[in-house]
Amino acid sequence: MNIGLDMMGGDYAPLEAVKGVHQYLSASAQPATLFCIGDEQQVQPLLIEHNIPANTIRLIHAPEVIGYHEHPTKALKEKQQSSIAIGFHLLASGKIDAFLSAGNTGAMLVGTMYTIKAIEGVLRPTISTIVPKLNGATGLLLDVGLNADCKPEQLNQFAVLGSLYAQYVLGVDSPKVGLLNVGEEEGKGNLLAQSTYPLLKENATINFVGNVEGRDVFKDKADVMVCDGFTGNVVLKMAESFYDIAVNRQLDNDEYLHRFHYENYGGTPVLGVAKPVIIGHGISNAAAFKNMILVAEKMLQTNFCGIIKHAFMQAV
Amino acid sequence: MNIGLDMMGGDYAPLEAVKGVHQYLSASAQPATLFCIGDEQQVQPLLIEHNIPANTIRLIHAPEVIGYHEHPTKALKEKQQSSIAIGFHLLASGKIDAFLSAGNTGAMLVGTMYTIKAIEGVLRPTISTIVPKLNGATGLLLDVGLNADCKPEQLNQFAVLGSLYAQYVLGVDSPKVGLLNVGEEEGKGNLLAQSTYPLLKENATINFVGNVEGRDVFKDKADVMVCDGFTGNVVLKMAESFYDIAVNRQLDNDEYLHRFHYENYGGTPVLGVAKPVIIGHGISNAAAFKNMILVAEKMLQTNFCGIIKHAFMQAV
Repeated sequence: MNIGLDMMGGDYAPLEAVKGVHQYLSASAQPATLFCIGDEQQVQPLLIEHNIPANTIRLIHAPEVIGYHEHPTKALKEKQQSSIAIGFHLLASGKIDAFLSAGNTGAMLVGTMYTIKAIEGVLRPTISTIVPKLNGATGLLLDVGLNADCKPEQLNQFAVLGSLYAQYVLGVDSPKVGLLNVGEEEGKGNLLAQSTYPLLKENATINFVGNVEGRDVFKDKADVMVCDGFTGNVVLKMAESFYDIAVNRQLDNDEYLHRFHYENYGGTPVLGVAKPVIIGHGISNAAAFKNMILVAEKMLQTNFCGIIKHAFMQAV
Repeated sequence: MNIGLDMMGGDYAPLEAVKGVHQYLSASAQPATLFCIGDEQQVQPLLIEHNIPANTIRLIHAPEVIGYHEHPTKALKEKQQSSIAIGFHLLASGKIDAFLSAGNTGAMLVGTMYTIKAIEGVLRPTISTIVPKLNGATGLLLDVGLNADCKPEQLNQFAVLGSLYAQYVLGVDSPKVGLLNVGEEEGKGNLLAQSTYPLLKENATINFVGNVEGRDVFKDKADVMVCDGFTGNVVLKMAESFYDIAVNRQLDNDEYLHRFHYENYGGTPVLGVAKPVIIGHGISNAAAFKNMILVAEKMLQTNFCGIIKHAFMQAV
């Protein structure tokens, strides 16, 4: 199992990426082979400093870095020697089985779409966010920004992708799927929600429980919550800001609020593409990098992309 | 100034409505004349019990009540002697100048649309919610559910309605108007946001400051935040649930979080209709009722509906 990690992505890279690698290797009995992609001159001394023997990882030199504010398509094209471009090259050629980065999100998405491509039958890949539930469980909300405008058929597919992810990667048995909406009853909502409801209701491959409202997001009503990427992105960023407010007001000692800390989740996989690609938060720290690696490992162990391929072969 | 109050609406009516009337009358030097609409047999003894002399208010008998789960249009038609139906009748005939209720929201909206009607030029009336800002200021988000699907022209009008409300009723000087979106730059967003941005940018009657994201909702970036009613409703209910979570986790002693308590705002006016109609929260307590009356008073004192009429006469 070969996992590629962009050592240069994120505000605190490469230091926190190196620390994350160290945490992962220390905690794992049979670690995957990590392909650490980044500027040798910067990464090598940090590996030594953090007691990561050269033979426990593969250091892949990438002299260039794509910055946060660079135009994704342009940067990927022009910076072929960047850690992100090299990562996708290795992933496409099969030298690595999964690729993760906390770098330029747009470049990661463009790289995924053009290099790895959607699984046959998937109309649009999607990105999700983990939602800490009040009962201690872990929920999933999708789409959170990749698809600002959606069709009902896409939301129906997000439900399948999210449901399988919750089941196989998050370990939720028979995940309850809810449609994020403005009321409880069937028939409520905007045109998209109204047209999506019957599709979800008739979809025999998911456990659809009906509509969920904004007030149910953190409750037990549904494990997987489906919405268009506009609504989901607003919800995600609002939840993040609540956590930031709690931290600023020193309320984050609260056990529940603390679960909102992004580092616990590490990153979001792009669901519906042929190989695991995980996009991390720009402020990723060591724990976040470690958890990103663990998510990739889990996706590979469960053959998650194979499961998705199989599900979509039967036509959704 | 005659303000009509539905004494029977809300989970704790008529008791909390009576207490709210008492609070209002005690605190006001020159109170408006309150038309208290409700079941005499229930309301009269409570008025006596709370030392509200008969001559300080007008008690209007309404033998029927529209329940929470009744179908709005059907109930309004069949229960002509309900407090809500009588309230709209008094408002339409000019016997009262404003009407407020914490009762069946749907019935209040139907009553408003069919009895009071939209101001000429207003495509669709809208409802908003107050947003407590971290800097102590008061923001406004609209639409929060009356219009699940919107056109760019409607969002442009919500911007004007919200801006005037913030200025005249909330007392915000030259309110900054933001478009709720998924990114900062112009061109970001779903088709609705992309098409709305240029309209807001060219609208000389508002102080447009660009896009705001989910993470900016509680920040100082914009005083008035505009979105479709689907997104706004999800945001509103999520914010309410955060407050509930804080209360349950005993974090609501926090000064900022406490400002989320609905009672501080009392209710939401229907913006864009010819007369002030205010819809309260179902769980309204005395303070909420008092604040609803104060909002109505402020709207009448500032001739808010006249200001809207004038603004829309000049074509938005």
